[in-house]
Amino acid sequence: MHVVPVSLGSRSYEIKIASGLLARLGAECAQLKLGHRCAVITDARVGRRYAAAALKSLAKSGFDPVLITVPAGEKSKRLGMVEKCHNQLAAHRLERKSFIVALGGGVVGDLAGFVAATYLRGIPFVQVPTTLLAQVDSSVGGKTGVNLKAGKNLVGAFYQPRLVLCDLDSLATLPKREFISGLAEVVKYGIIYDAVLFAQLERNLPALLRRDHATLATVVARCCEIKADVVGQDETEGGLRAILNFGHTIGHAIENSSGYGKYLHGEAISIGQVAAARLSRAVLGFSTNEVDRIQNVLVQAGLPVRMKLDSVRRQKLLRAMKLDKKVSGGEIKFVLAKKIGNVVWSQNVAEAAVQTVLDEVSCH
Amino acid sequence: MHVVPVSLGSRSYEIKIASGLLARLGAECAQLKLGHRCAVITDARVGRRYAAAALKSLAKSGFDPVLITVPAGEKSKRLGMVEKCHNQLAAHRLERKSFIVALGGGVVGDLAGFVAATYLRGIPFVQVPTTLLAQVDSSVGGKTGVNLKAGKNLVGAFYQPRLVLCDLDSLATLPKREFISGLAEVVKYGIIYDAVLFAQLERNLPALLRRDHATLATVVARCCEIKADVVGQDETEGGLRAILNFGHTIGHAIENSSGYGKYLHGEAISIGQVAAARLSRAVLGFSTNEVDRIQNVLVQAGLPVRMKLDSVRRQKLLRAMKLDKKVSGGEIKFVLAKKIGNVVWSQNVAEAAVQTVLDEVSCH
Repeated sequence: MHVVPVSLGSRSYEIKIASGLLARLGAECAQLKLGHRCAVITDARVGRRYAAAALKSLAKSGFDPVLITVPAGEKSKRLGMVEKCHNQLAAHRLERKSFIVALGGGVVGDLAGFVAATYLRGIPFVQVPTTLLAQVDSSVGGKTGVNLKAGKNLVGAFYQPRLVLCDLDSLATLPKREFISGLAEVVKYGIIYDAVLFAQLERNLPALLRRDHATLATVVARCCEIKADVVGQDETEGGLRAILNFGHTIGHAIENSSGYGKYLHGEAISIGQVAAARLSRAVLGFSTNEVDRIQNVLVQAGLPVRMKLDSVRRQKLLRAMKLDKKVSGGEIKFVLAKKIGNVVWSQNVAEAAVQTVLDEVSCH
Repeated sequence: MHVVPVSLGSRSYEIKIASGLLARLGAECAQLKLGHRCAVITDARVGRRYAAAALKSLAKSGFDPVLITVPAGEKSKRLGMVEKCHNQLAAHRLERKSFIVALGGGVVGDLAGFVAATYLRGIPFVQVPTTLLAQVDSSVGGKTGVNLKAGKNLVGAFYQPRLVLCDLDSLATLPKREFISGLAEVVKYGIIYDAVLFAQLERNLPALLRRDHATLATVVARCCEIKADVVGQDETEGGLRAILNFGHTIGHAIENSSGYGKYLHGEAISIGQVAAARLSRAVLGFSTNEVDRIQNVLVQAGLPVRMKLDSVRRQKLLRAMKLDKKVSGGEIKFVLAKKIGNVVWSQNVAEAAVQTVLDEVSCH
């Protein structure tokens, strides 16, 4: 088992990465000294496969779990669904020492984390991410929240879990498109922090794509280490943490302007990262060779690197970008690469340069 | 001007208490180094009287304020209204450095504070409480949130303001019933922390009731000092802070079970404090003389100390109590008095004792 510590003072916790962790959920929670009552929040799709095992493990360790199931998909990330969860927690008499288990992908983790952050002004929660994307990214670091019509993740809280359990077995059954979507965030960690990881990905992509167990374990653990390292230095994104948004300014705008669900998060981020790499070349002299390496590894992973962009879509995209949380003083901020493994954040970019890059990532 | 510091490390701030502060809102905010764009959140009733002055003062100091008005009353404290506010903030392009001014009573402060806590995972906010209740209690200490159908304040966050401005002028025009409601929390500070303050209230009640300026300034400042002192020792209610809930377990249940709005918060808390004093006598031997002093000062302030309680209402009341945030392991916890100025928290009380006290505070 890989154990990655996240060091945040009194809010520190561990990320555990191994096979068979779901069956150990109860035993792991028992070490956290929480109340007996708990709620497993999951979605209909994940619940069908894993909820029974989670409830059984919790009950076996003496907990009194209830199950709350939300519809699968990004549309559940809204305040109306948060309130539905709150109402169920109240109906089941969850108290301050009760806890929530977020069982599922990024949507469930973000939603259930925000429910935990706000019910009774905050009760403990445990992340059990079942997708690659959630294991390497969204379950770690305490960003929780939901969407507004105006944009993705515009509502939320910084709220850390007490424990993250990444059961590698859940990756084996993940639909191919969703697994590949997660690889976009894996590639991101190489670009923003670790040239060695990036080179390993270039070499080991076939093993990753066939979900080789040892390769997955190493890669998930390394991504979690990087995220823990960054979040430990800057929990609430005063500075450094912004590097985790490489590719996300354009990526979020793609998701938002095309209607949630058309692109999976990783797919939008893949296009966003290529755009950010090209912007980095235009603004910081990032090398053409490295732009190509980024594009190649994403293409070989099976991810999109271009999109259709007529003038109506382009306007929607630019409007969505201007609503991003990272806008400051009306200016859109970008994370840009100097070289693979080394990026800088909070970079202002002229709109003309953004327009040029949007031309480059358009299919005609 | 009285200035009361709230010491919470990097989240420290000041409470300023004086006449004429609303006109100084812009100048005071200018010292906080925030963004230019801001939103004043108020309710229809308070807005009619004070919004123009607030906007004018902010604009004069170079800020770019927008006004968001919610319906007056407890019914605005719900997640649907939070989302409406979020949508308006997004429509007006508020960014991470933008800020919110909560202008109004407890409902507005709790709602706007929670909006600030959750928009873009938290933007700064300034409290400008316009009621006695909000000035001495709800605007200080960072409890923000909204209600669920199942109970009051069951959803929320601990989120501190950057500044609290208590303009004493706004108390002069407060409707009599609302002013008197605020006195219930003033009396509470005497009971939980300061026997000298309690004795002063007994002596100076006539001056307070005619809203004598110097008396009000001293009393508001002392209440804020006590609250700041308690919150500074225990921000998130791990222990001591619970004493601020004296009278609130029964009080909240009265508000909830009778339908929000029938009793003002202070009115429910007044009955709740008498009940808590009587419980303290039954459980801790709190003296009959002090029960009488508490009841007398509340009666002389014009507050209710009894309520009609048929068997249906009593059942609803007990059910509401069992949903209180302070329930732990299924047991209702009470703050009980040993003597005036000295209370203990987290006291389990047998349901039979609660029933007896409910008999005592019932009108027949």
